[in-house]
Amino acid sequence: MEFTAKQIASLIQGEVEGNENQIIRDVSKIEEGKPETLTFLSNPKYEHHLYTTEASVVIVNKSFVPKEKVKATLIKVEDAYRALATLLQYYESSLPKKTGIEQPSFIHETAQLGDFVYVGAFAYISEKAKIGKGAQIWPGAFIGEGVKIGEGTIIYSGVKIYKQCVVGKSCIIHAGAVVGSDGFGFAPDPDGNYQKIPQVGNVVIEDNVEIGANTTIDRATMGSTILHEGAKIDNLVQIAHNVEIGSNTVIAAQTGIAGSTKIGENCMFGGQTGISGHIRIADGTKLAAQTGVASAIKQPGTAWMGSPAINYLNFNKSYVIFKKLPELYKQLQELQNKVDKK
Amino acid sequence: MEFTAKQIASLIQGEVEGNENQIIRDVSKIEEGKPETLTFLSNPKYEHHLYTTEASVVIVNKSFVPKEKVKATLIKVEDAYRALATLLQYYESSLPKKTGIEQPSFIHETAQLGDFVYVGAFAYISEKAKIGKGAQIWPGAFIGEGVKIGEGTIIYSGVKIYKQCVVGKSCIIHAGAVVGSDGFGFAPDPDGNYQKIPQVGNVVIEDNVEIGANTTIDRATMGSTILHEGAKIDNLVQIAHNVEIGSNTVIAAQTGIAGSTKIGENCMFGGQTGISGHIRIADGTKLAAQTGVASAIKQPGTAWMGSPAINYLNFNKSYVIFKKLPELYKQLQELQNKVDKK
Amino acid sequence: MEFTAKQIASLIQGEVEGNENQIIRDVSKIEEGKPETLTFLSNPKYEHHLYTTEASVVIVNKSFVPKEKVKATLIKVEDAYRALATLLQYYESSLPKKTGIEQPSFIHETAQLGDFVYVGAFAYISEKAKIGKGAQIWPGAFIGEGVKIGEGTIIYSGVKIYKQCVVGKSCIIHAGAVVGSDGFGFAPDPDGNYQKIPQVGNVVIEDNVEIGANTTIDRATMGSTILHEGAKIDNLVQIAHNVEIGSNTVIAAQTGIAGSTKIGENCMFGGQTGISGHIRIADGTKLAAQTGVASAIKQPGTAWMGSPAINYLNFNKSYVIFKKLPELYKQLQELQNKVDKK
Repeated sequence: MEFTAKQIASLIQGEVEGNENQIIRDVSKIEEGKPETLTFLSNPKYEHHLYTTEASVVIVNKSFVPKEKVKATLIKVEDAYRALATLLQYYESSLPKKTGIEQPSFIHETAQLGDFVYVGAFAYISEKAKIGKGAQIWPGAFIGEGVKIGEGTIIYSGVKIYKQCVVGKSCIIHAGAVVGSDGFGFAPDPDGNYQKIPQVGNVVIEDNVEIGANTTIDRATMGSTILHEGAKIDNLVQIAHNVEIGSNTVIAAQTGIAGSTKIGENCMFGGQTGISGHIRIADGTKLAAQTGVASAIKQPGTAWMGSPAINYLNFNKSYVIFKKLPELYKQLQELQNKVDKK
Repeated sequence: MEFTAKQIASLIQGEVEGNENQIIRDVSKIEEGKPETLTFLSNPKYEHHLYTTEASVVIVNKSFVPKEKVKATLIKVEDAYRALATLLQYYESSLPKKTGIEQPSFIHETAQLGDFVYVGAFAYISEKAKIGKGAQIWPGAFIGEGVKIGEGTIIYSGVKIYKQCVVGKSCIIHAGAVVGSDGFGFAPDPDGNYQKIPQVGNVVIEDNVEIGANTTIDRATMGSTILHEGAKIDNLVQIAHNVEIGSNTVIAAQTGIAGSTKIGENCMFGGQTGISGHIRIADGTKLAAQTGVASAIKQPGTAWMGSPAINYLNFNKSYVIFKKLPELYKQLQELQNKVDKK
Repeated sequence: MEFTAKQIASLIQGEVEGNENQIIRDVSKIEEGKPETLTFLSNPKYEHHLYTTEASVVIVNKSFVPKEKVKATLIKVEDAYRALATLLQYYESSLPKKTGIEQPSFIHETAQLGDFVYVGAFAYISEKAKIGKGAQIWPGAFIGEGVKIGEGTIIYSGVKIYKQCVVGKSCIIHAGAVVGSDGFGFAPDPDGNYQKIPQVGNVVIEDNVEIGANTTIDRATMGSTILHEGAKIDNLVQIAHNVEIGSNTVIAAQTGIAGSTKIGENCMFGGQTGISGHIRIADGTKLAAQTGVASAIKQPGTAWMGSPAINYLNFNKSYVIFKKLPELYKQLQELQNKVDKK
């Protein structure tokens, strides 16, 4: 690719500050910027690199005021991070799209494939499955009986989708993810053995959902486990049977959500968080990494930390004292002695 | 399917209270119940739905006494959850079973297949592997050299079983699980490099074990990693080399058990728990979610919480005070001042 | 196999104490040792088994002094664990190596394969991929476009490597691991929807790296996610976009490292640890299991515990008092009463 700063700016409604004819041939990270590459500054932690980067053009927020002289040409936009998204999406959409059926693949005679689909070698499409227009089923993926995959959705290599699950349009499911495995339900016998509760529900994933590599989403015991529109799930996340995840909720890696819990919209969960079963989490809830939520969160827009989770600020205040506990303990004993002697 | 309440009741040794000729065409969750569906009430958290559900028939415990008028027909049984298991198992057993060999699949000429097995397309069965009668090897599964799979066991899509491992009868291994990968063993060189300890043992899974999606079970360095009869392991669990899991122990998702640890029978571990290596955990041990066990648990039937784990009740008592630490700290300083001034 | 104690000793530069003609036919764990097997003692926890084991020969450290009479023949070496590594490596290298191309497999016409490679059935090798001499690509593995696999590297069954990633020589990637999935990057719209940041970087894995089963390593947004030479990563680990892992760093199972964090060399992380994004961790850092690191660790060779992590010893000192918090609280209230009454 080859663009000028001016061309880039016009794609992202930005204003050039510097040489608008500067040539761009690639993108780079600001701390590793090379001449004739484009980079961006969004996280203030990286600001000091702006003054030393060799990148020729840097996208910055309109509101950003440099503290030192900047050698690079700047493109000023409302939101540098979003502008980067726009640019990289533009670049990706320029790449050729996978299409066609590779051999050997297994497509049941009753399966229906839309136009322009890609089916990689060793992909398996079961009876009565429906693959929407332009969807991509990468090599070695398994699509179960009666599964529906929406238009433009990408199912990467080695994804396994059990029978009767439904995936919306424009979703991305990364390699190795499992959708629709049995929920973890067993009823104990009087003699301590466990009887399996067959899981007869499914998983429904709405449009524009992204699911990370090796994430697992169990089917419902009855009814559906549901991921609503625009939810973004990272790698190695566990979503148990009958869970519901609200629209535009973002869940970082290795989080686990136990059975029948309902998560609101626009929540943000840090990595390795855990949420108990059979509870509701209000819209806009934020969880610090490794937080463990044991009971319902009713007020929208609150932040939590610790295991079991408490209010984020309160946790931090308590933790400050936790670190001083040995001193505090000593102080108390000395004070006790002093009082006892009086 | 179509049954009457009376027919259902006879399958689960229940007593009908209401219209015994009520028709049932499907199952539903109590909170989403529709007419002509069957549902159940077991968890008291859901009791309020009983009074409003549109489901026509509800299975309840014999001991349950409704607090309001119930519109639905009730079927009263000893244990509603177990009755549900029985019913859904009955339903599942009525579905046709997968059988036959799909093409293309890879079956080594020295492998032995029992009668009525299912081998999906792209499944790989290595030399000297033995697949028991009626076992199912789903598409894309990998069965290593010399592996034995017991009768009626289901190996779902994309499961990978390394060489020499043994899986018992009537097991279920969910998609993407890995059995028999190398234990994590390295010996440091004097210069800080790590030499691999080749792992020459295997994994032995006894009968009636269920293993969740994308769970990993490492082979033993020498000898066997063992899962005893009836153990139930959820998704994304890590079981390290030379671990032993007792009969009917139930382990929730994302738990990790470090090398050479021996877990007793009938234990229940919450999600995201962790257990150190080279220790023993007594029978009937219960761990709250996210608990981290650092040393042996010797007394059977105890409950634990926290990281490192302490007695469940003690943890909660300490945590109550943890939440008050800022006040407690302030109180102590004020008291100190008061005493100092006297 | 059949060796004498003397032959074994000569392979590991050891000294025989006992019957140097003792025959060895297999290896065993010290607690399960059988006659004519070889075992080892390295972890002092297992010393008591030495006095009762039926194993005929035991490798021990030169520095080890038995407290009781030992029936077995001993082989004394500098480091028993490393000697075991040497012996088992010797044994493994005597086994036949997989080689040749099985059918059906998919090898793009532009892919390049070195001599003596193994490509299992249902493996997929994309255009312009390069597979080094003697490398093994096991059944069902997916090698993306332009991927390079170094000499002698083993890619186990069902591994998925996305386009443009690079894997060095003598690496082992265990079954189900995913390398090069998209980093988790989204820019929020003003209306709360998330725009995907296409991830245009890759993953670079240097020589002698081992990666556990079902571990996930995301590609960089721009530039590379890098695992340096000799790093050892256990199962179900999450390594986010633009992370860098130093040489000979060892990371236990289910650990997660958030985006853009740089980990030093020779670190050791326990299981289920978590590390925040955009920070640096000094060389030789040690983390106890379940530790959560929230900010940079600057001093090399320190040990940490807790979430958020503090100095290992300090955490334990505080935790001792945490367990006494209910008593401490009671003591404070009583003291307050006493002082108030004076």
